Amino acid sequence: MHAAALIALDWGTTNLRAWRLDAAGVPLERRESAQGITQVADGRFCEALVALCGDWLDDADPVPLLAAGMIGSRQGWREARYLSCPAGLPEAAARLVPIAFEPGDGRRGRVLHIVPGVLHESPDGVADVMRGEETQVWGLGSAPARVLLPGTHSKWVEVDASSRIVRLRTYLTGELYAVLTQHSLLGRLMRFGESRPADFAQGVRLGLDHGGDATHILFAVRTAGLTGRVAPEGLPDLLSGMLIGLEMAGARAGLAAGGLSERVLLVGDVALTQRYEIALDLAGLAWTRADASATPRGLWRVAVAAGLVHNRA
Amino acid sequence: MHAAALIALDWGTTNLRAWRLDAAGVPLERRESAQGITQVADGRFCEALVALCGDWLDDADPVPLLAAGMIGSRQGWREARYLSCPAGLPEAAARLVPIAFEPGDGRRGRVLHIVPGVLHESPDGVADVMRGEETQVWGLGSAPARVLLPGTHSKWVEVDASSRIVRLRTYLTGELYAVLTQHSLLGRLMRFGESRPADFAQGVRLGLDHGGDATHILFAVRTAGLTGRVAPEGLPDLLSGMLIGLEMAGARAGLAAGGLSERVLLVGDVALTQRYEIALDLAGLAWTRADASATPRGLWRVAVAAGLVHNRA
Repeated sequence: MHAAALIALDWGTTNLRAWRLDAAGVPLERRESAQGITQVADGRFCEALVALCGDWLDDADPVPLLAAGMIGSRQGWREARYLSCPAGLPEAAARLVPIAFEPGDGRRGRVLHIVPGVLHESPDGVADVMRGEETQVWGLGSAPARVLLPGTHSKWVEVDASSRIVRLRTYLTGELYAVLTQHSLLGRLMRFGESRPADFAQGVRLGLDHGGDATHILFAVRTAGLTGRVAPEGLPDLLSGMLIGLEMAGARAGLAAGGLSERVLLVGDVALTQRYEIALDLAGLAWTRADASATPRGLWRVAVAAGLVHNRA
Repeated sequence: MHAAALIALDWGTTNLRAWRLDAAGVPLERRESAQGITQVADGRFCEALVALCGDWLDDADPVPLLAAGMIGSRQGWREARYLSCPAGLPEAAARLVPIAFEPGDGRRGRVLHIVPGVLHESPDGVADVMRGEETQVWGLGSAPARVLLPGTHSKWVEVDASSRIVRLRTYLTGELYAVLTQHSLLGRLMRFGESRPADFAQGVRLGLDHGGDATHILFAVRTAGLTGRVAPEGLPDLLSGMLIGLEMAGARAGLAAGGLSERVLLVGDVALTQRYEIALDLAGLAWTRADASATPRGLWRVAVAAGLVHNRA
């Protein structure tokens, strides 16, 4: 067995993912648990970590631990204050937040380092934030780049030629889909089942065409059901497409200043990114799919920049 | 006591309101119950009506009954199919849906007439609908007019010179506020209490400025809380203002084609319309407040047009 050089953690709201990386930053093993920060009671983060990978902490030669994600939020283990844009590896490395394990934790003397999230402030005083995605973006190693990370809170991240994050916009797309299907009148007429690509595409088109009238066009999901133009089975995809189309319309307008020629680098799981690929095509935006292992690579790069490990690759 | 000439009902999703109108259409009495259509079990609408105003039905000289609202929807007493735009009093009068009380209803021989809702179809195939608001608009008696009826589903209604409804747009403003405060991450940082006018106005401005990027700017409610720029007590008003600002931005762009010079006629309860007045001012749109008794007057006018009553006013 290769010796481990780093224990890398992606500790988010709903999940905890862990990798043991070798001296070249290559994953030796990967584990996952449902112990996201909202699932951990009474601040017992150390216990949750030991439950998932306590055996990794018993190495004779202790390896460093590095974590990114909501674990560094106010609701996490310890708050790691946001880095302001522009934010790259040097800035993150200089601002890691160390947590020494308490004697009672059973792993006395071990230290976990937390990667801070990133804050972007627009000239009009609007702030935007992320925790975890910044590390994924650094793991891509693409610069300059326009990165799109779909999800509950979809992120559009701009990276300059020196690999620093310079701009960040969050879209509430996934969360709006969840609350509108589950809790609003729009969801009442819906039936959930197979995906309906034509209704999804129609939704994307409506979102793109009505980007300036979002809170009106959403009501069309109800009327499409009332008038029978879209079957109950197609309404979830109509709404999903519409929300992604609205995101594209807004983001595309924002890109215009920087030129539409650069490709969008898509990061995320295949089921969701495939929807975004269709929407990017309909929006006339070129895209490339990034490979999926950006998170452990990003954590490795931060660890190298911080001198926690020595890159022998 | 004056003799009644019409029993007028506004029967919506959550409430049933009833008026006895005299031979000049003037209200003699008003009653209200929480028996909106979603509160009535097993289709027992007649029972709900008798419970509120059974004594009105015992007149020696039976007066006609006329109802507007969701009572005419598929989930109501009987479906009254939508009128297409342009839709005015003559069209509504010609398409009332009569319901003869069943023998078991205890008021054999009485007939309730239902006013159909209105459907608007845009050239791009997007439909919009209302039930109840059309009757309120006809009750205003203003033509031509641009009418704004704030609410769970805010309505912008355009009325031509011959008092016909020619265009209709619904905004999901009120429902978005409810689901986002109660069920989304945006609500987590909020504290509810006194109104905070400065935060409300800031929200309106952000909504107006980011009309083309709605699903992004909504996330700013969370970041404003995270960064401490807005106190937890101000976040509900920040969101409320932002949603109304987004509505204004979209509606204002839609108005531009028709000219911005006409005043917006505001209809609704004072607490809500006051918020809209502030937002209309910030959006640079002139407005007038309509008087609040439009619904029974609208029902009266439909009844006159249909020959159910003879207007002796």
